[in-house]
Amino acid sequence: MKLVSFDVWNTLLDINVMLDVMAVELSRLMGACIIDVVEGMMLTRERIKRMRAGTQGDPERALEESQEMLAELLGTDVEVVKRAAARATLNVGDEIVIPGAKETLEVVKRKGLKITVTGNVMFWPGSYTRLLLERFGLMNYIDRTFFADEVLAYKPMPEMFEKPLRTFNIMPEEAVHIGDTYAEDFEGALKAGLWAVWINPEADEVRRIHERGFEVPGVEGILEVLEELEKGKPT
Amino acid sequence: MKLVSFDVWNTLLDINVMLDVMAVELSRLMGACIIDVVEGMMLTRERIKRMRAGTQGDPERALEESQEMLAELLGTDVEVVKRAAARATLNVGDEIVIPGAKETLEVVKRKGLKITVTGNVMFWPGSYTRLLLERFGLMNYIDRTFFADEVLAYKPMPEMFEKPLRTFNIMPEEAVHIGDTYAEDFEGALKAGLWAVWINPEADEVRRIHERGFEVPGVEGILEVLEELEKGKPT
Repeated sequence: MKLVSFDVWNTLLDINVMLDVMAVELSRLMGACIIDVVEGMMLTRERIKRMRAGTQGDPERALEESQEMLAELLGTDVEVVKRAAARATLNVGDEIVIPGAKETLEVVKRKGLKITVTGNVMFWPGSYTRLLLERFGLMNYIDRTFFADEVLAYKPMPEMFEKPLRTFNIMPEEAVHIGDTYAEDFEGALKAGLWAVWINPEADEVRRIHERGFEVPGVEGILEVLEELEKGKPT
Repeated sequence: MKLVSFDVWNTLLDINVMLDVMAVELSRLMGACIIDVVEGMMLTRERIKRMRAGTQGDPERALEESQEMLAELLGTDVEVVKRAAARATLNVGDEIVIPGAKETLEVVKRKGLKITVTGNVMFWPGSYTRLLLERFGLMNYIDRTFFADEVLAYKPMPEMFEKPLRTFNIMPEEAVHIGDTYAEDFEGALKAGLWAVWINPEADEVRRIHERGFEVPGVEGILEVLEELEKGKPT
């Protein structure tokens, strides 16, 4: 194994912490009830996740589309959505970092593997996610970031997984991607020929679920997977 | 007059303050001498400004191109340039706000005019500039932001000036744009049919220099221009 690709949201950073802070900022800027804002965000999020699982929607406009959909559903201006995202990026606290994420990155880095981040975007640009990874010290372990609004593709599209491989001149079978969304992360990585690790919080232990795939209860499960793969005889 | 469009860099925020902080972060991340980094940034900046004045270069890749050019000239990875931009956005202090900028926005806002920001991008995305405008309280006066990497055009292209007009359903002659770069801001706005105000720090006073154009010594000069235009008999 030469490269580990990490999903960001609910793998390294907690999406609910970010969405909560953004909802507070949105309700302040709009003078609206936070309950309505949270409901609007959840509805929009579900709609977009469904669209993307089927790779519908224009990858070049995926971010703008998500911001416009949210603004429309909340009955506000798209600039207000952008402002709330900026404020949330500035104000969110370090409880956004998933427990064990930093330590996991550190161990993978020590093994001498390349570390990349491969993330979809919704409501805020990849540049804000990069800024959060920088703010909380995770960028010190990451060699390269690949965000959907910069690559102009999104998971599960193969392009999102192939770009990091091309950048480091690495074969698909020498790379493993870990993430929490089955369709985007697990199926997407497998389809592009990588090894895949699905974070399933309901799993009891690390378990092989595919020729090139594992399920793990949390992000630190990648370490056990890497050890299995090094032994050359996966469970 | 119904709308005032502001350039950002050297109109509302001081580009040299931002570039200095980014140079410090770049030299730290690279372990390089800051003098070399500053020189590399200045060289790259001049090359890009020249390209844009002639509207050469692909507007869809303008940001990435500037980051890649800088990385190449400094002999570093493009991710290091992105990280330095993120750190500078987080760490720069309020000396970045041009004296008088906030007060000027406040007066224009009180007049009941729409306020937009129309900015080119270089080295960092428009989303970071929006975050800086938010951090230092300027977004409270701004109705909409139009950044080159989001509009997929750049000043002096007419599209950059037409987009705000379409958004608010305003005629070109009902809008005025103010900025410090003659080719991008002044000539660009005039060509798109708007009134134009050129910030020329060497000017002694507000002076009419074109049928629809003025030069002013600083950003607060827009207030005198607006008064002249309200009187209907510009100096």
